[in-house]
Amino acid sequence: MLNYRRDLEKMPSYDGVEKSYRIKVNANESTMNLPPLVEERVINRLAMLAFNRYPNAEYYSLVGQIAENFSVEPSQVLLGSGSSEIIEKVFHAFGGAGRKIVYPQPSFSMYKIYAKAAESQGEPFSLDENFNLNVDEFIKKIREVGASLAVVCNPNNPTGNALTLEEVEKIAASIDCAFLLDEAYVEFYGQSATHLVAKYPNLIVARTFSKAYGMAGARVGYMIAQAEVTRMINKTFMPYHMNVLTLAAADIVYQMRDEFTPRLQMIIFERERMFEQLKTLPGVEVFPSEANFILIRLARAEELKNYLESLDIGIRYFSPSAFGLKNCLRISIGTIFENDEVFSAIKNFLEAAQ
Amino acid sequence: MLNYRRDLEKMPSYDGVEKSYRIKVNANESTMNLPPLVEERVINRLAMLAFNRYPNAEYYSLVGQIAENFSVEPSQVLLGSGSSEIIEKVFHAFGGAGRKIVYPQPSFSMYKIYAKAAESQGEPFSLDENFNLNVDEFIKKIREVGASLAVVCNPNNPTGNALTLEEVEKIAASIDCAFLLDEAYVEFYGQSATHLVAKYPNLIVARTFSKAYGMAGARVGYMIAQAEVTRMINKTFMPYHMNVLTLAAADIVYQMRDEFTPRLQMIIFERERMFEQLKTLPGVEVFPSEANFILIRLARAEELKNYLESLDIGIRYFSPSAFGLKNCLRISIGTIFENDEVFSAIKNFLEAAQ
Repeated sequence: MLNYRRDLEKMPSYDGVEKSYRIKVNANESTMNLPPLVEERVINRLAMLAFNRYPNAEYYSLVGQIAENFSVEPSQVLLGSGSSEIIEKVFHAFGGAGRKIVYPQPSFSMYKIYAKAAESQGEPFSLDENFNLNVDEFIKKIREVGASLAVVCNPNNPTGNALTLEEVEKIAASIDCAFLLDEAYVEFYGQSATHLVAKYPNLIVARTFSKAYGMAGARVGYMIAQAEVTRMINKTFMPYHMNVLTLAAADIVYQMRDEFTPRLQMIIFERERMFEQLKTLPGVEVFPSEANFILIRLARAEELKNYLESLDIGIRYFSPSAFGLKNCLRISIGTIFENDEVFSAIKNFLEAAQ
Repeated sequence: MLNYRRDLEKMPSYDGVEKSYRIKVNANESTMNLPPLVEERVINRLAMLAFNRYPNAEYYSLVGQIAENFSVEPSQVLLGSGSSEIIEKVFHAFGGAGRKIVYPQPSFSMYKIYAKAAESQGEPFSLDENFNLNVDEFIKKIREVGASLAVVCNPNNPTGNALTLEEVEKIAASIDCAFLLDEAYVEFYGQSATHLVAKYPNLIVARTFSKAYGMAGARVGYMIAQAEVTRMINKTFMPYHMNVLTLAAADIVYQMRDEFTPRLQMIIFERERMFEQLKTLPGVEVFPSEANFILIRLARAEELKNYLESLDIGIRYFSPSAFGLKNCLRISIGTIFENDEVFSAIKNFLEAAQ
């Protein structure tokens, strides 16, 4: 047996091929590819790339655009392979033996894994039965355990609810440790805390191109924080961790981000329409959402998941052991037609059972 | 001050913009973009991508091709963002507090950094004055320090020389710890040790698309090892660390890799031609190379570097503190015209000085 890093054996592996579905509303992706005009310009840009050269100015071009949009200095912006890599590196930067990282549960299931990968101790804080976060208790826990990092996903995945900016600010102001705000879904909420970075030197806001900008496959995320924080986090990234195809594509997408406004509005409108429709179904608890998905709870959740799969519709089912998510299903918002079909299928399932 | 990971402050940061040059032979990149036919097919493939979906089958398509080419199981292949990420993760997997990692010096300068990033102790082993590695002494050192990982770059960067396969096999057979063979430049040498993986459960071979396949910007590398080793290393990779643009582009490039044979032969031919020409220059020591670059040593190395920069030619100069590389310059092999111009410029510099 080779001399592997301590506890590496206990880490989970990720090598499954994800199933594809006719209607795939299980991963909170955009169900639409890039707007045609954006895609055309992206491809034209890719056709001009020097594949043979190490990435260089492309990184700073995208950073410059993002900095300008948020009225921060380019030194306050770091890019990553999706906000996944941002989160991984922030956990690493504040992790290590004996360090404690506090995050809500249920929330993004990877926080637990990132804490373990950073060789630190995950300290989950339980949301209440309506998935609300008690801010005062959360602050209390962060202080009590002496956390080096606190994390909030806002709006929260998979529950869909969100803290107000006042609540976010209260947390930032009340704790001494680093505070990572994961805003993966913030475009569907509209209340970003990026402007608070100027005021709070412990605040790190992570954003992504994967959801609102339909770029999950390209792997682009970014973080905004004070320059001293980005200087330190940057040390955890190895040179050339971003590739030139992704950088060039994201540069075009960000230039053309107004093209995404209509579909953002459509997703928000469709989310509200689905919410109202789902609420009419007997025996189904529907949780209000500020994101691009809706969480529901019903007694026969697993059966419904299987029924939808038999129709080649993929939605997210949670293992019964996932904290607070027993009998829950998460449905990403797709196009009008996809949403109609998903809703009809759920309705048929429930009516057939009566 | 936030509670950063121990020793993070001491890690270097990488945020410089690399200079571009009219003739850029400083980074061992291919100086040619993709062959036109390959590029056309890559762009056509990119135009069919679902940017909005998390990467999925594309990873396994490329893994399958690589496995087939080397007659190994797909479970023996892992992909990374360049062999950089492969090396980073292998160092992490065998690193940790108190662990020792042995690598030659001078060699790829990042080994030292990766050892530090893995919170382990780098143990450099010095090459002799001709940059040869004394295999018996190297084995002895690995055993004496009780290393968890030994690393060899073959052919070696920046010196260009290579171990024979018999020497590589002797190391693999003589040590108990993991043995990472970094074959970034092996296509210019022709003697890969990938077939030895079947025999040695400690051997990990890292390869890259960055050099021979002109894909430095796309960030694609891979490793081949026994399935038990890849299973463990895979735990250090987070989900979706590879993006779909890179995967799709590399899949096409690998399918069409025969298109790269003529330019590989040209680089090898040009390397030999440059070697013979450089040897004719008085006061210049030229080291034989099996890679896509040549290392030279001359008294006025820094002055020559500055002179070439004044002509907008970028070559690699080493800091006087870099072990064994005082007054050394590394010149990547470019096209015939680039090589001729670089050689003439060096010749002019030396003649003007007389």
